[in-house]
Amino acid sequence: MGYRFLKKLTNVEDVLNFVSNKLTVKLGVEEVKFDDSLGRVLAEDIIPDFDEPSTDKSAVDGYAIRGVDILSASQYSPVRLKVIGEVKIGGIPMVKGFKGKAVKIATGAALPDGFDTVVPLEYVKVLDNEIEISKSFPIGDNIIKRGEDFKKGQIMLRKGKIIDPFDISILSLLRKIKVKVLEKLKIAIIPTGNEMIEPDETGDLYKTVNTNSYMLYAFCKEPWMEPHRLKIVKDDLESLTKIIESSIKSHHVLIITGGTSVGELDLVPEAVQKVGKIDLMIRGIGIQPGRPTGVAVINGKPIFMLSGFPVACATGFIAVVRPLLYKMVNALEPPRPVVRAILKSRVSSSSGVAKYVRVKVRKIGERLFAEPVRITGSSALSSLTESNGFLVIPPDLEGFDSNSEVEVILYNPIQE
Amino acid sequence: MGYRFLKKLTNVEDVLNFVSNKLTVKLGVEEVKFDDSLGRVLAEDIIPDFDEPSTDKSAVDGYAIRGVDILSASQYSPVRLKVIGEVKIGGIPMVKGFKGKAVKIATGAALPDGFDTVVPLEYVKVLDNEIEISKSFPIGDNIIKRGEDFKKGQIMLRKGKIIDPFDISILSLLRKIKVKVLEKLKIAIIPTGNEMIEPDETGDLYKTVNTNSYMLYAFCKEPWMEPHRLKIVKDDLESLTKIIESSIKSHHVLIITGGTSVGELDLVPEAVQKVGKIDLMIRGIGIQPGRPTGVAVINGKPIFMLSGFPVACATGFIAVVRPLLYKMVNALEPPRPVVRAILKSRVSSSSGVAKYVRVKVRKIGERLFAEPVRITGSSALSSLTESNGFLVIPPDLEGFDSNSEVEVILYNPIQE
Repeated sequence: MGYRFLKKLTNVEDVLNFVSNKLTVKLGVEEVKFDDSLGRVLAEDIIPDFDEPSTDKSAVDGYAIRGVDILSASQYSPVRLKVIGEVKIGGIPMVKGFKGKAVKIATGAALPDGFDTVVPLEYVKVLDNEIEISKSFPIGDNIIKRGEDFKKGQIMLRKGKIIDPFDISILSLLRKIKVKVLEKLKIAIIPTGNEMIEPDETGDLYKTVNTNSYMLYAFCKEPWMEPHRLKIVKDDLESLTKIIESSIKSHHVLIITGGTSVGELDLVPEAVQKVGKIDLMIRGIGIQPGRPTGVAVINGKPIFMLSGFPVACATGFIAVVRPLLYKMVNALEPPRPVVRAILKSRVSSSSGVAKYVRVKVRKIGERLFAEPVRITGSSALSSLTESNGFLVIPPDLEGFDSNSEVEVILYNPIQE
Repeated sequence: MGYRFLKKLTNVEDVLNFVSNKLTVKLGVEEVKFDDSLGRVLAEDIIPDFDEPSTDKSAVDGYAIRGVDILSASQYSPVRLKVIGEVKIGGIPMVKGFKGKAVKIATGAALPDGFDTVVPLEYVKVLDNEIEISKSFPIGDNIIKRGEDFKKGQIMLRKGKIIDPFDISILSLLRKIKVKVLEKLKIAIIPTGNEMIEPDETGDLYKTVNTNSYMLYAFCKEPWMEPHRLKIVKDDLESLTKIIESSIKSHHVLIITGGTSVGELDLVPEAVQKVGKIDLMIRGIGIQPGRPTGVAVINGKPIFMLSGFPVACATGFIAVVRPLLYKMVNALEPPRPVVRAILKSRVSSSSGVAKYVRVKVRKIGERLFAEPVRITGSSALSSLTESNGFLVIPPDLEGFDSNSEVEVILYNPIQE
């Protein structure tokens, strides 16, 4: 009963700092094919062993020339140059440039030695085997210089980057066929509660359907994570201790839902304490819904204790679990879509908690309006699907007035 | 040569409208298990056949009572009620409430018939088999009403929704074990060019490594899409016609890269025209890089012709292809992270094109600054990985001055 009311809440910033300092578990490194590496965490710096482009190239379709040959070219005194060949894209520039000569060249084709400038097609008058140019161009014009994209030895992608489509194209360009990435973060998702049944189980209307495992599994379905849904565990100390003990061996992270401060069945923290030496135990975090959220660290691995109530479980995951998962792989969280909107009705909060208000953002004319979704209970799942964003009231504010401009973190598109 | 300079560009808005009006191909519907449906496009409205919660429930740990019994309760005249039982979470409320009685109840447990109010534990003094209450509570206080989350028959999720983790939890709560989703959008990615080699092929330094297929494949690795990378096609009309003809049969979308307006090898549009009756052909779109981008529609299916230059290929995909893929499945694009930042140096653009300037956004103190990445070539992949966002200069502006506040679409996190 000691924990039940959780009067003393730790604020989220502190939780993230305290916990990340204790997370000492090291992930292994594995090699994957570059085209299977999307969304994985890069475990090596990517450094090219050649310049790109590897030769000077033409930036346009035109004629490669020596800039000095056309310095005097003008409409009144055009310069004629003899065309001695052609370089297509992908072609080997067999010709060599010299005084008074030109070579036809395609965009992206390698510039032959001796030439230094390309005159675009539209400024060239083509005669028999000569061209006429009536305008001078700065030396070096329309050339992509060797190494302009990147140079040998330069770090292109850094360890800890979550590999995106642009990075994939860099890896392919560098012919980095095998790439070192962190092993996947193995996450056990453990639902608890005597009242719980699975969606495909039958039970009377007093039972609670396990929704949290499926939501958390979906949140963890990132290429760099490997979530496992474990079976529902009964609220008894022995069962809980056993499952925590066995799953912590084969996973980097445990996420337990339910049983953290509900009624008298406050067994999860007790079971966690029986399993091993606790490096850290935080009970009660300053988020709402989600106050009963807890985190323990055992052997450098985190055990998250989330509320059994779906919305509190979601906010606990978003505010506490997810940032720490990114810290465990030393990667930055991707940027979140945030919009500014006019609040349509007042929202209030008690001090000391970051309150996650679910709002529906709509576009009316050119302006965005945010309307709090009426349902406030931490079990009301519909509040998450009726809304499209969170308005977070920071712990030091009592709320926001109607008509004030607020920032909303969007998780679904705005409908007009 | 007629298309080469593409003087007349169609602006992106028009392209999206013209093309989406012609896309008549219909996707099939398939059933998947709800926990495999993440990221798929919902193909049915989701409507519950029961109220949630199915009974009135307690919102707190406390005692269920009849509100009328404690209307007169105060510190000076506390009310005593006899405790006649207990309801745990998941338990069946066997007792029935009547005058002068109370029942111990857990958060989330079903309220027994006859009771209408719950007094939280902390306001209750527990005696032997009685409780004492020194404060009145409004009738109905601390009750979650039946149907408060949602009601039978109400649409919870709508057709066209891309299923997210919150939706997964709704589906599990509704015990919607099988869910109807659109079949995956089948996308053929076709690289062209005589100069092209695959990353794992050997070739001299004048060859161009195929990076676009891998980047596009990564962009299309969404649960609702099914991208296929086809082999590099040579720049001859017969090969191109053959591959377009065969792949359009087994795919909903073709994305062809290269050969759209490079040098004299402008064969892709010609090949497209040979394959079938063209419902629409747009050549030259007002984006930069990416001016040579084209779209054709044949048999209600789109054939996108993207530049062979990596950055132009990327912007063509982001500005033109991706929005149309979402339209094909009638879904909204997810919100994009946009930030406002101070521009560190002037950027300019020619009118009539939406210019995608790659910028690096940094946080200095409390402010964000956007610095254009120096490399501007449409082949310079490093400009995409050195930057973390696009600053789009709209077609009707000539640019932005240094120190102006601009909006940046972020694709990678901001480092401090």
